[in-house]
Amino acid sequence: MKGGNRPDNSYSVELDKIFNPKNIAIVGVSSAGFGFGSGILLSLLAIGYKGKIYAVNKNGGEFFGFKLYKSVQDIPSEIDFAIISVPAELVPASLEACRLKGAAGAEILSAGFRETGTAEGAKLEQEIKDISRKGIRVIGPNCFGIYCPKSGLTLLPGPDLSREEGPVAFLSQSGGMAIDLAHIGKWMGIRFSKVVSFGNGADLRETELLEYLQHDPDTQVICMYIEGVEDGRRFFETLKKVAATKPVIVYKGGLSLSGHRAVESHTASMGGNRIIWESALRQSNAIQVNDMYDMAHTALGFSLIPPGKYSGVAVTGGGGALGVLSCDLAERFGLMLPELENGISSKIMEALPKPGSSAKNPIDVANPMVHPSVLREALVGAAQDTRIDIQVLIQLLYHYKSMAMGLGKPLKEVVPYMELVDMIQEVRSGTGKPIVLVLPNLKRDNENMDVEEIIRETRSKAVERNIPVFDDIKDAFKTIAYVSRYYSNTKIYKDKGDETKGSV
Amino acid sequence: MKGGNRPDNSYSVELDKIFNPKNIAIVGVSSAGFGFGSGILLSLLAIGYKGKIYAVNKNGGEFFGFKLYKSVQDIPSEIDFAIISVPAELVPASLEACRLKGAAGAEILSAGFRETGTAEGAKLEQEIKDISRKGIRVIGPNCFGIYCPKSGLTLLPGPDLSREEGPVAFLSQSGGMAIDLAHIGKWMGIRFSKVVSFGNGADLRETELLEYLQHDPDTQVICMYIEGVEDGRRFFETLKKVAATKPVIVYKGGLSLSGHRAVESHTASMGGNRIIWESALRQSNAIQVNDMYDMAHTALGFSLIPPGKYSGVAVTGGGGALGVLSCDLAERFGLMLPELENGISSKIMEALPKPGSSAKNPIDVANPMVHPSVLREALVGAAQDTRIDIQVLIQLLYHYKSMAMGLGKPLKEVVPYMELVDMIQEVRSGTGKPIVLVLPNLKRDNENMDVEEIIRETRSKAVERNIPVFDDIKDAFKTIAYVSRYYSNTKIYKDKGDETKGSV
Repeated sequence: MKGGNRPDNSYSVELDKIFNPKNIAIVGVSSAGFGFGSGILLSLLAIGYKGKIYAVNKNGGEFFGFKLYKSVQDIPSEIDFAIISVPAELVPASLEACRLKGAAGAEILSAGFRETGTAEGAKLEQEIKDISRKGIRVIGPNCFGIYCPKSGLTLLPGPDLSREEGPVAFLSQSGGMAIDLAHIGKWMGIRFSKVVSFGNGADLRETELLEYLQHDPDTQVICMYIEGVEDGRRFFETLKKVAATKPVIVYKGGLSLSGHRAVESHTASMGGNRIIWESALRQSNAIQVNDMYDMAHTALGFSLIPPGKYSGVAVTGGGGALGVLSCDLAERFGLMLPELENGISSKIMEALPKPGSSAKNPIDVANPMVHPSVLREALVGAAQDTRIDIQVLIQLLYHYKSMAMGLGKPLKEVVPYMELVDMIQEVRSGTGKPIVLVLPNLKRDNENMDVEEIIRETRSKAVERNIPVFDDIKDAFKTIAYVSRYYSNTKIYKDKGDETKGSV
Repeated sequence: MKGGNRPDNSYSVELDKIFNPKNIAIVGVSSAGFGFGSGILLSLLAIGYKGKIYAVNKNGGEFFGFKLYKSVQDIPSEIDFAIISVPAELVPASLEACRLKGAAGAEILSAGFRETGTAEGAKLEQEIKDISRKGIRVIGPNCFGIYCPKSGLTLLPGPDLSREEGPVAFLSQSGGMAIDLAHIGKWMGIRFSKVVSFGNGADLRETELLEYLQHDPDTQVICMYIEGVEDGRRFFETLKKVAATKPVIVYKGGLSLSGHRAVESHTASMGGNRIIWESALRQSNAIQVNDMYDMAHTALGFSLIPPGKYSGVAVTGGGGALGVLSCDLAERFGLMLPELENGISSKIMEALPKPGSSAKNPIDVANPMVHPSVLREALVGAAQDTRIDIQVLIQLLYHYKSMAMGLGKPLKEVVPYMELVDMIQEVRSGTGKPIVLVLPNLKRDNENMDVEEIIRETRSKAVERNIPVFDDIKDAFKTIAYVSRYYSNTKIYKDKGDETKGSV
């Protein structure tokens, strides 16, 4: 396909090569070392990209042990992929040179195109489009590029992203959002197949990338941050088709009046109308979220909660207000907290400390420091109620701090966090019903860094066991509601019925 | 008033004594040291209560150097205040003994009363009521008591709460919520006058405490967590009166069907109807919030943002998506992000890095690591636009981590956090317009504890300068909207007009 014309809807083979390049040319590596080009080179080294890297700078020289080729033409081999970060006016020539070197694609990190609102910017962007039509796929310009843990590609400021692979893809018009979700995913336990920051989207953008992901075996959950789409009709047709087989979580920015204005100067897109967007997303069975954390929680939920309809939730925790609040929140998100059957409830009560406990649902264990062996009784018991589809366990680990101080021991020795996550894993597999863990931290002062540490440690051990962890019960409920609603509305899962439910 | 009957609406003098006792009897201090009684004694020592403490245990003995009196009668002086934590059936006799010893009030930590739903529990609670009518004010039962940084009283599990005094009072039917807000306040910068966990509220409860706070010179902002009120009409009359002079932030739990049920077993209250509650709160000009963090943010906002109407907001930050999102969020909360006047905008642009910056509003400084001296130009410039009432500055400090790694330096040496907070303080005072700081942390993995540390350090330095800090721009906007709406609807401030606005 090199150098020739390509049919408008081709993708797949070229894109596979772009996401998994055996070698990369980085065009625009300043030997001073403070530009985008040198930044991405160092990031690729830090994340451990194993392919060959060729660095190009018109003045030649050397950077970090890399010979700087004076031009793309000078590179002594064909290239699979190029990363371009030269000034805007030099981009078209560089791109053409990469095309002639056989690159399947290029990400253009440089800004200064259509988003500037100038005629010059628009003209340069058109040149990029024209060259791409001759046979090189383009990500960008004005973007942070591709993060692909499998192949070791990373975003512009992404030296420290995770190399663990997973089911979540993210297509983002904003580079900032791309890097933000990648960072959040690292500690929250969202593992990625591909993250693409496509910026102005001169060539590859939302619709074509979405189509590619539908057939990507590494991707099971798709997130999108969209400021505006090129062809609304085609986009929504594609979205509907893709969302019928894989959950697509959409965060649409710029639906407000002033947001609309900001979108123009950000990625040169047209924002679109709120009502049209919201109804079209609903009709497509896409999951619309309204902020970054919402998107992250939802991606986590779809990664770790098995497909199924979850309406009945059992909540276990210590501290009665949590009980009241969880009921209120459940109602807000359309979930049910059915009162447990009497026999089950009284059985659970036998194990709980008294007075102060209550085992109706929420199961209030009265005290935030109840041992996992007692919590197990509550979780095992509640799972026996057929109306319970999923369980939420809230642990206020920060309350152990006073105990640790009293005993003069480090917090890590006092919190039974390994017992906790092992118990959850075991109960989940024994009962066949998913369990979600909530670990709030209300002690966030400088003196309590150890509380933060133990919560992070507990979270990472939970994530290793595929237990989703949230900071807040509200996030847990909202996520369960999104997951449940999606599968309830998706034909492929509806037909399977209960067989998919709760297979952890 | 000791031992006599008291008129139904009396308070003030007795309550002053309860909040500031010169000595305290703790009834029910187990020498084994793991009960509520010993817990509160150790907490009072840890927080540094300076009055005299008398510990009572029916078996006598000693605990932590304290002689254990066998009965309240044996205490060799009158007492101001009692903390009772004996089993429920022994509470009435203990309370009566404390009354006879001259105590103005007692907090009853013990559970096992009306919240159990048993006839025995209800009877015991009635006995408490009857004794209190003879002349001792009661907080509780089934509560965590009083936290008063000024006098050194603290909540049941509160050895490590702050001793810094401040304008915020919190009346909470839930002990868990009381301790949670007290902990959040410590790092968020909410400083308290009084926190009262009143549990079942057998005697003192929402309405009378609210009336007291209206006249409490130490209290300027009132938070309430309510599960149910005793006398709805009297409560809303009082609320309306109090909210006309001091902001009252109300979090009403149990407005859902299942929440209602949980309320009964938690504090034995009747939940009430959502629509009635919400309209009555609105009519009272109370600020209704829907979760704990919402309450905390709002309390912080009312503490640190001066009274005034804030509709025009300027947002400054690095990373374009923040711009789009802040516009969307502003609209959601009824705030305006007016496009800055051309002259102001182009003046700001002179100071900003290019390309990628934009100074329309949001002011996008293109890069998260722009120095405070450059940010100053943006903030000073935007303040000159008369449509700007308040400013929001977003700093993604976690992005400095890559820089620190690149330079091989500790993060603390790389982040100009002191320059940042000093700059904000100076610009705020120079321009007379409040500035709110947003410090998100998206790098929350174990390897990035230093990011958490620098953000906490920056937050605490900001709080020292009375700069409110939020984790998220959404919280900042919501808080500004709450503050602005309250003052817009409050006659006393409306009449003062612009004179109150922006006096930092």
